[in-house]
Amino acid sequence: MKRWILASALLAAGLAGAQGASAQRAYAQEQVDLDMTARIRQEAFQRSQVMDTLNHLTDVIGPRLTNSPAMAEANRWTRAKFGEWGLANVHDEAVEDLGRGWQFSRAEVEMLSPRAMPLHALPKAWTPGTPGAIEGEAMVARLESKADLEQWKGKLRGKIVFTDELRPYKPSEKPDFQRYDAADLDELLTFPLPKPRAIDPDTLARMRARMEMMPLLNRYLADEGVLATVSISSWNDGIVRVMGGGSRKAGEAVGVPALVMMAEHYNTVLRALQRKEPVRLRLDVDSRFLDETNQPGYNTIAEIPGVGPHKDEVVMLGAHMDSWHAGAGANDNAAGVAVMMEAMRILKAVGARPDRTIRVALWTGEEQGLLGSQAYVARHFGKFEEPTDPAQKALPAFMRQQRGKLVRMPEYGKISAYFNLDNGSGRIRGIYAQENLAAAPIFAEWLKPWHDVGATIVTQRNTGSTDHVSFDAVGIPGFQFVQDQLDYFSHVHHSDLDVQDHAVADDLKQASAIVAAFVYNAATRPQPLPRKPLPPESR
Amino acid sequence: MKRWILASALLAAGLAGAQGASAQRAYAQEQVDLDMTARIRQEAFQRSQVMDTLNHLTDVIGPRLTNSPAMAEANRWTRAKFGEWGLANVHDEAVEDLGRGWQFSRAEVEMLSPRAMPLHALPKAWTPGTPGAIEGEAMVARLESKADLEQWKGKLRGKIVFTDELRPYKPSEKPDFQRYDAADLDELLTFPLPKPRAIDPDTLARMRARMEMMPLLNRYLADEGVLATVSISSWNDGIVRVMGGGSRKAGEAVGVPALVMMAEHYNTVLRALQRKEPVRLRLDVDSRFLDETNQPGYNTIAEIPGVGPHKDEVVMLGAHMDSWHAGAGANDNAAGVAVMMEAMRILKAVGARPDRTIRVALWTGEEQGLLGSQAYVARHFGKFEEPTDPAQKALPAFMRQQRGKLVRMPEYGKISAYFNLDNGSGRIRGIYAQENLAAAPIFAEWLKPWHDVGATIVTQRNTGSTDHVSFDAVGIPGFQFVQDQLDYFSHVHHSDLDVQDHAVADDLKQASAIVAAFVYNAATRPQPLPRKPLPPESR
Repeated sequence: MKRWILASALLAAGLAGAQGASAQRAYAQEQVDLDMTARIRQEAFQRSQVMDTLNHLTDVIGPRLTNSPAMAEANRWTRAKFGEWGLANVHDEAVEDLGRGWQFSRAEVEMLSPRAMPLHALPKAWTPGTPGAIEGEAMVARLESKADLEQWKGKLRGKIVFTDELRPYKPSEKPDFQRYDAADLDELLTFPLPKPRAIDPDTLARMRARMEMMPLLNRYLADEGVLATVSISSWNDGIVRVMGGGSRKAGEAVGVPALVMMAEHYNTVLRALQRKEPVRLRLDVDSRFLDETNQPGYNTIAEIPGVGPHKDEVVMLGAHMDSWHAGAGANDNAAGVAVMMEAMRILKAVGARPDRTIRVALWTGEEQGLLGSQAYVARHFGKFEEPTDPAQKALPAFMRQQRGKLVRMPEYGKISAYFNLDNGSGRIRGIYAQENLAAAPIFAEWLKPWHDVGATIVTQRNTGSTDHVSFDAVGIPGFQFVQDQLDYFSHVHHSDLDVQDHAVADDLKQASAIVAAFVYNAATRPQPLPRKPLPPESR
Repeated sequence: MKRWILASALLAAGLAGAQGASAQRAYAQEQVDLDMTARIRQEAFQRSQVMDTLNHLTDVIGPRLTNSPAMAEANRWTRAKFGEWGLANVHDEAVEDLGRGWQFSRAEVEMLSPRAMPLHALPKAWTPGTPGAIEGEAMVARLESKADLEQWKGKLRGKIVFTDELRPYKPSEKPDFQRYDAADLDELLTFPLPKPRAIDPDTLARMRARMEMMPLLNRYLADEGVLATVSISSWNDGIVRVMGGGSRKAGEAVGVPALVMMAEHYNTVLRALQRKEPVRLRLDVDSRFLDETNQPGYNTIAEIPGVGPHKDEVVMLGAHMDSWHAGAGANDNAAGVAVMMEAMRILKAVGARPDRTIRVALWTGEEQGLLGSQAYVARHFGKFEEPTDPAQKALPAFMRQQRGKLVRMPEYGKISAYFNLDNGSGRIRGIYAQENLAAAPIFAEWLKPWHDVGATIVTQRNTGSTDHVSFDAVGIPGFQFVQDQLDYFSHVHHSDLDVQDHAVADDLKQASAIVAAFVYNAATRPQPLPRKPLPPESR
């Protein structure tokens, strides 16, 4: 077996000047096992199973709403698959009190008058269905403040309430499908100075008011005898983009049937109402809650045990398996799950024998606020002390201005890094180093064998909104890859178009290979990945 | 009243060299009444009613399928509007035997297994509905040749037949919304030499076979007890693009319920079938034929009578009022109708007293092959002798290779020109001169006051596929304007997105002004517009 050692002292393009002497020492000896890299690449490119995995998760299992039967089936199926591939320590870890299961099968909306036409709409998750087909008149009412609720009291009974204003069509003059070009990648290498973390009191007050409104509104809608609510899809062109409504928590008010309607149909109804034409609708929504009480959800975990002196240390990789329900959660995030699973399969197939243990986690509850990964990190690695200020305590963790002191768990020192994928099915173009300056030159070395498939950059930018944040927040090196955007933010994100068709097979193969190589490198290098400093108040 | 006379001998940009001495004589004296042009412009830009008209046609009346109740209501409403505006000779002219009325109100499709999800599909026009909600198993069968029908005989009973293959997603890398830039307009000024008109015998045989297959297939589907057919939408991204199926002709077989499904859902079903999973569907399609026998359809006609020495001559303008049924026929072609109506309203509002009579026609049956305008031209102006060759006779008129001799009607010499609009709601960027070289420099002069709103070019290209072809074919100067494409061929053409939201108000105002000016110019210039030579066999 021939083994190439790279020990370059050259700084990767775009990083020059960003690194100090100590970082240079760290990466000057960085070794990439090119024989193993070649094996990984061959397995990933020529014997890929990533699309089979994606297909099963999306087409066969379907959308995997947190705590839904489909999510449970995805936990079961991925465990079975990990077992079949010979992974060790395959198990689920519970995340307590994630709420109630919910699913839907039918959402039929018809305009009966002023003229007959089918309307395209889908229900918000965790909202009730209709008792069979129901009919009612549409009306417009904004219900955003307590004053709104007061104003409409007694006037909404038996109505189907359209809660948004008409939104004029704005054409997009950019292509729906985008890849980074050289200029875009250069731009990504620049680091915009962060905005102050403090949220101004007005914004904070508005956010808290909105959070308080939700349960009030749900109770109000039911008490007032509203038949259903309809809101406008946040995208145009017939795409229905829908997340949650009602409440997933047992004992909380779930409101009334709540639909999101394609913008062009929503506007059609609103224009009729503006012309003072009575609009009569027929709704038939079959959706249901599946539990009476809050249930745990599950993260699925599996490992390739380390065989070297650091086998009690871990390198983690993961992606969230839960999804929204309008499509099949293909790009958000069966794509990430399929890539992370494939990376594990590849490492087994090439006979990888890592020093450290490699552990994959398929998270639940990401769409509800990174709940699965947060619970996992809190249990295994560390969490912040609860704030004492009641105003801060009332906020969700990610909105708090002061994090408090970090309480470390015994495994805190045993994790080298966490790698995440959750920006659709676009190929990897590099990695966000999250201001971990010492990690950057290491990644720059690791990326070199992948320049020819488009993965080239290490940016110090912080990217958020997905599960690496749970690790990064407590000071564990947690990373998300830079991915080509494709049509993630024009077509598929949380929409009915998030189905297998919009996932790009070659891009997923490329990503699988790179992730496999990254975790292998992390699991075999002599040192764990360097950590960046925690903020002073948390040290 | 100040009156500016333009008498420029300059050739318009891009036309240099295309004109002979006689054409130069024709336009050297071309006079544009800039006072009237300014009045038209002011009325069009500042007191526009074009969006009100479009709104009524699309939102209130809705899609206007040929011979549907909505099309009849559009005939009625536009007559009333023309009457209200003080137009003369407002009437409908019948187009015989256009077929039967049809309409639909509901198209609900649900996948019951392997997993429950709503599927988005719409019925083809002139196909039967289901008797309430029905259930059946999906299967794939190509039914394109007699051999196919033979192969599947006895195997389709009670099935829902998916007739297309899976179509992999191809992302578009161009913006969905497009305007011509300077380079595009330059390109449009070049004239590609025409392909030979003769269709090769193989293509001809295939086309005839396909035409023969339709009634055979419709009978077969009913005889074999097929529950319904489903085909794939020709566009991706959830857009349902649907035209006709079955038959609009009384006495012809209409087949079984036939739906077009959004591509992403169609492919989802096909992938399940490829995995050998039984796919069970529930369909509920409420569509119905409204007549037992073929009925006439109607073109709506109205005039501003000429008051000069040529008042027995006419200048015509028109657009088709019929549409497909998935959206509201907003860009195809309520946009054209609203602009043509607005042009008439503007001319009345500015007190135009044209020499020639200005006549507007709102056509029916365009989507079925320019049937309304063809019948009108045949009755009023001229038509070709029926071919004697039976092979040619069997073809629709537009596919025949030899046109035969033109039979002229008495009004043939009395029409100066016909102007059409039917490429969506995009603003006018110029005009297709259809190789009428002598007309081009005249148009170039007429366009000068509109350069500042983007209308600049006269191209000799022939554009087709709409009603000016009916005039052009018999040698009458018939023109369609060059329009910005916007999202006509990415979102709206024949699709469920063809609703008012996708029509651009400012563009329609601009078009209304230019059309009003063009027909005014044509109706006041001393000579009728020059004609191009008929092909030798038709002279």
